[in-house]
Amino acid sequence: MYGDTRFVTTLETTAPRRIRRLAERQTTDRTALFELLDTELVGHLAVVVDGTPLVVPMGFARDGEHLLVHGSTGGGFALRAAAERATVAFAVTALDGLVFARSLYDSSMNYRSAVVYGVLEPVAEDETDAALLALTERLMPGRSSEVRATTRKEQASTRVLRLALDDVVMKVRAAGAGEAVDDGEDHSVWAGVVPLRRAWGEPAASVLTPAGTPVPDSVIALTTGDRGSRRIS
Amino acid sequence: MYGDTRFVTTLETTAPRRIRRLAERQTTDRTALFELLDTELVGHLAVVVDGTPLVVPMGFARDGEHLLVHGSTGGGFALRAAAERATVAFAVTALDGLVFARSLYDSSMNYRSAVVYGVLEPVAEDETDAALLALTERLMPGRSSEVRATTRKEQASTRVLRLALDDVVMKVRAAGAGEAVDDGEDHSVWAGVVPLRRAWGEPAASVLTPAGTPVPDSVIALTTGDRGSRRIS
Repeated sequence: MYGDTRFVTTLETTAPRRIRRLAERQTTDRTALFELLDTELVGHLAVVVDGTPLVVPMGFARDGEHLLVHGSTGGGFALRAAAERATVAFAVTALDGLVFARSLYDSSMNYRSAVVYGVLEPVAEDETDAALLALTERLMPGRSSEVRATTRKEQASTRVLRLALDDVVMKVRAAGAGEAVDDGEDHSVWAGVVPLRRAWGEPAASVLTPAGTPVPDSVIALTTGDRGSRRIS
Repeated sequence: MYGDTRFVTTLETTAPRRIRRLAERQTTDRTALFELLDTELVGHLAVVVDGTPLVVPMGFARDGEHLLVHGSTGGGFALRAAAERATVAFAVTALDGLVFARSLYDSSMNYRSAVVYGVLEPVAEDETDAALLALTERLMPGRSSEVRATTRKEQASTRVLRLALDDVVMKVRAAGAGEAVDDGEDHSVWAGVVPLRRAWGEPAASVLTPAGTPVPDSVIALTTGDRGSRRIS
């Protein structure tokens, strides 16, 4: 366990963030990266404030070669970091399973993680509507056509920021328990992987939703599709 | 959506990390904090390297009033941060559901997040065995009695670090869609919450596990218990 799940490893980025331990887990597979980013809904944004790290979880969406996040025009350190053109890190991780080896040391977790490094860029005002729509369509596909339009006031209080997927550290462990016939372990002990699944539950209507109101297409698509669900490792 | 899921908010910590927007979501409920930390298995550690943030996902476990993580003695910036007594941030987030309001702006996510700020402290050598056991028992309860003992060499290559739960920013959104009878929205539109569940899947034995080897108690306890599973919001 404390062998393989250290996770103290990142790759595919510029020094000094390139950490070379466990380099075999590096992957440059952009398909895998996009799949991770298109399935997970929450990431962690890290910025530096007065020399110390500050982290917040944020909803996000991938739009082509960028991640989109949003902040209030009134505040938020994401906006400050953008204004200062400070380098930020945005991390997205999916835990796919626990790996039970025949020693605690070799026990592990299956996971996929991506950490994007770069400078947050405010989306230009004339592109904000499109960016908000892209963000919405990623997080709640189809919902925008079911509800009223976003008002000018709402749009004015929102800033969309984007982060280029240029400097990305991706790591994947998707394998069984490390083992060999002659490794001296007792092979009569069960070893294997317990996958972790994630799925949408039963939609619960709000109190003001009239009885009998049908669950909308956007929710049906969500709960019957695999958006947000995790692959089984 | 871009109203409520901003997440650009943290609380219950020292300035300048105290960000006051959306302060109503602050919670000082230590029970809720412990429940989050005892259910989630992976967090994100952020440190500052050369003025920029560096983030890695890491397995972790709560042990009383501390979080435990582990690193190799050979490297790892967690160990460096500990040696330098640099302030780090360790973030743990559970996404509990998507909130479909009648406007995109008010749509949101239900979630629980904790960000722990502090200095990583190496666990003393004579306390390392106990800390490793605590870490193991948290991540894979019961497994330590099913496999061989950890060797001296394995122990020697592992350092356990701990982080006091003194300076914690916790935020929780666990509510339905924000709505009022007179808010001008079209109440014939469905609004509500779609919970996100997580559960362990079917254990898959490794190739070297002899056919018929029973799934061990530790795995049975995991898959039939709620360790790692998320509460439904």
